Amino acid sequence: MENLRINADRLLSDLDELAKIGAITGGGVSRPAMSSTDVAARNWFRARVEAAGLTFRRDGAGNLSAVLLATDNPAARTLLAGSHLDTVVDGGRFDGAVGVLAALEALRTIREAGLKLAVHLEAISFTDEEGEVLGLMGSKALTGQLAPEALARPRGGRDKLENGMRRLGITRNSILAARRDRDDLVAFLELHIEQGTGLEEAGHDIGIVTDIVGIRSYWLHFIGEAAHAGTTPIIERADALNGASAFVVWGRALVEERFLPGVLNCGAIEVAPGAFNIVPGEARLALEFRHITEPLLDEMADALFELARDVADDNGLTLQIEQVGGCVQPAPLDENIAATIERAADGLGLKHTRMVSYAGHDTQVMSKLVPSAMFFVPSVGGVSHNPREFTKPEDVVNGANVLLQAMLAIAQDAERS
Amino acid sequence: MENLRINADRLLSDLDELAKIGAITGGGVSRPAMSSTDVAARNWFRARVEAAGLTFRRDGAGNLSAVLLATDNPAARTLLAGSHLDTVVDGGRFDGAVGVLAALEALRTIREAGLKLAVHLEAISFTDEEGEVLGLMGSKALTGQLAPEALARPRGGRDKLENGMRRLGITRNSILAARRDRDDLVAFLELHIEQGTGLEEAGHDIGIVTDIVGIRSYWLHFIGEAAHAGTTPIIERADALNGASAFVVWGRALVEERFLPGVLNCGAIEVAPGAFNIVPGEARLALEFRHITEPLLDEMADALFELARDVADDNGLTLQIEQVGGCVQPAPLDENIAATIERAADGLGLKHTRMVSYAGHDTQVMSKLVPSAMFFVPSVGGVSHNPREFTKPEDVVNGANVLLQAMLAIAQDAERS
Repeated sequence: MENLRINADRLLSDLDELAKIGAITGGGVSRPAMSSTDVAARNWFRARVEAAGLTFRRDGAGNLSAVLLATDNPAARTLLAGSHLDTVVDGGRFDGAVGVLAALEALRTIREAGLKLAVHLEAISFTDEEGEVLGLMGSKALTGQLAPEALARPRGGRDKLENGMRRLGITRNSILAARRDRDDLVAFLELHIEQGTGLEEAGHDIGIVTDIVGIRSYWLHFIGEAAHAGTTPIIERADALNGASAFVVWGRALVEERFLPGVLNCGAIEVAPGAFNIVPGEARLALEFRHITEPLLDEMADALFELARDVADDNGLTLQIEQVGGCVQPAPLDENIAATIERAADGLGLKHTRMVSYAGHDTQVMSKLVPSAMFFVPSVGGVSHNPREFTKPEDVVNGANVLLQAMLAIAQDAERS
Repeated sequence: MENLRINADRLLSDLDELAKIGAITGGGVSRPAMSSTDVAARNWFRARVEAAGLTFRRDGAGNLSAVLLATDNPAARTLLAGSHLDTVVDGGRFDGAVGVLAALEALRTIREAGLKLAVHLEAISFTDEEGEVLGLMGSKALTGQLAPEALARPRGGRDKLENGMRRLGITRNSILAARRDRDDLVAFLELHIEQGTGLEEAGHDIGIVTDIVGIRSYWLHFIGEAAHAGTTPIIERADALNGASAFVVWGRALVEERFLPGVLNCGAIEVAPGAFNIVPGEARLALEFRHITEPLLDEMADALFELARDVADDNGLTLQIEQVGGCVQPAPLDENIAATIERAADGLGLKHTRMVSYAGHDTQVMSKLVPSAMFFVPSVGGVSHNPREFTKPEDVVNGANVLLQAMLAIAQDAERS
């Protein structure tokens, strides 16, 4: 069993085929969750699952699965592995796709080898990981972490959710009913590209994730007074953009000084009235920050909000802070499975390391329900969420073989327990 | 003649009537140039002109005039006074309106007094002063300073111009043909509210403008690289918003340190892709600055662009600077007319001072064609471009009487010369 390897050509060919669905110029893919291109990818996936002689399943949240049943033991628990087929708008062909197709390939390989396992194996693609509609929707629904309110105020807007549900043939009720019982599950594994340069720079093949950072998102609303840009002396202005800009500059400095390797991002800003000749009366700034524990996130929030209040005061502004839904709790991952993945990498002669994931992933949602683990393969130049995203074929194959071996090891452990 | 006074009740009643057209909650007015509310105001103005027994005229640029003909001298030159009836969106009831209605009232008063003057008197309302469509369109057309290219790329967008021309019954050709001959004109006078607190704070009734500032407008386009907000370490980012924000903060400091009483404004910003979880790859910042001479404007431009290049370099960004049309040259105003206005104010027992206008006005366009002058009455709290804009009735009346007396004095001078 230790010598079993996935079919590299088949996996890489699947990856190429999938990348044609929603392909954009520059080699990228635009396949936003629940869009018509997402539906095309879903249909393609179903055909691949059925062609492989695996059982196809779809739950009420639109999560898609290939299942290899433990036929000798119909009451067996299920070992899950997977990722997501959706992409950001104008994204890359590896983020998510690698994890789903490697899991599918692992199941095909095990089925073809005729191995009899005491657990069901399931390769899953979660709905809307990237957040075009809601973010981590499928994994949240599966683990019972999706609040009905989140469906009432989707971050992508109601229309996207309504149209998306219609395309997928699902409803709010079916989404909320997609919850599964932890007693039926063994574990969850996710293979993913790193989306950073850590592995590449250190020359590692595999990065085993110890923690996935928590994410908090806020709108900082600076409110001053719109004024004539000629006749209002600078000193008398309550310039909302000046306040927001000071926060952008000093907020970054604050995180670099006190919170590394935590990160922050000011990713969007809206100014009103928004004219050359009017001093901005309002500025709404999108703030997001990430760190590995709740106490560190709390500390960051305190420091950043104090800074925001200070720059507001300095500029004669009032400040409103609005938390944005979809914040993600930090997730320490399962040590036993991490060790299993390390042994699998060792068995394949691959160089590995442990690392923190600064990106959010379905694994961090799944970890609240079942023992979960995640591992990375290198991204060239760390480029991601971009058509230039690239992972070398040998790294994709390495990742899939580590996944195969780790699944086999976990399945055997489950047999013994 | 020195004892002639305008009819205060009639003027204030006109001001109230006009404020009903496009009235918004909070006491303000929304009467953007060439909109249907602007058309309603134009129709009202025409009716008032004709009711006063004055001659109504409209030129190819939609400029509206009340004319009191020098009947004894049909070949007489024309003394112009006026301002504009359009407002910014959600603006006030005094900006522009005071100048037009005071000029109309001066003509009515002179006509009723049966004075025979050797010049025609014309009270004019210029089209689109505020820039909802193009900015200073009517005065630029009248003075031959409107380039056909400006009509091809109006800052308010082509639709607004096309629809507006249709509403007013004018065309691009008629606008460009509205040019008048300087030999036919004596001078131009504009009464306006201050839109600042200078007069109010010093307790002055009348501010005589010596210079109107020049205005330059640019888009600063900072271009970095969009990146994953979790996995891209802060130090490795080319964050376009961080660069733009540094410019906002340090640009303001630079002007305060080196260029007062010049002013700058960063009034709008657009960020792409514009998501919580993506480091901004592009930021487009609207920069405007004002000063009283071309050399000072050149110096400001040099210093601000050097700063922009520095912050771009510091953040790993490239910088593109795009000049935006509608820049306005500084205008030193006519000393003789300024002295005439001072004498008129003295004759009325009003406290006056000289000052610079940091707002752009039709006067600065007119000054390129004919001797021009402008004077202000106080704005309470300096509030302008805002529904709370307010000028006391006695100040409106004072302004109109100064205008009347100055027009009479200039008309007499023209008679002698």
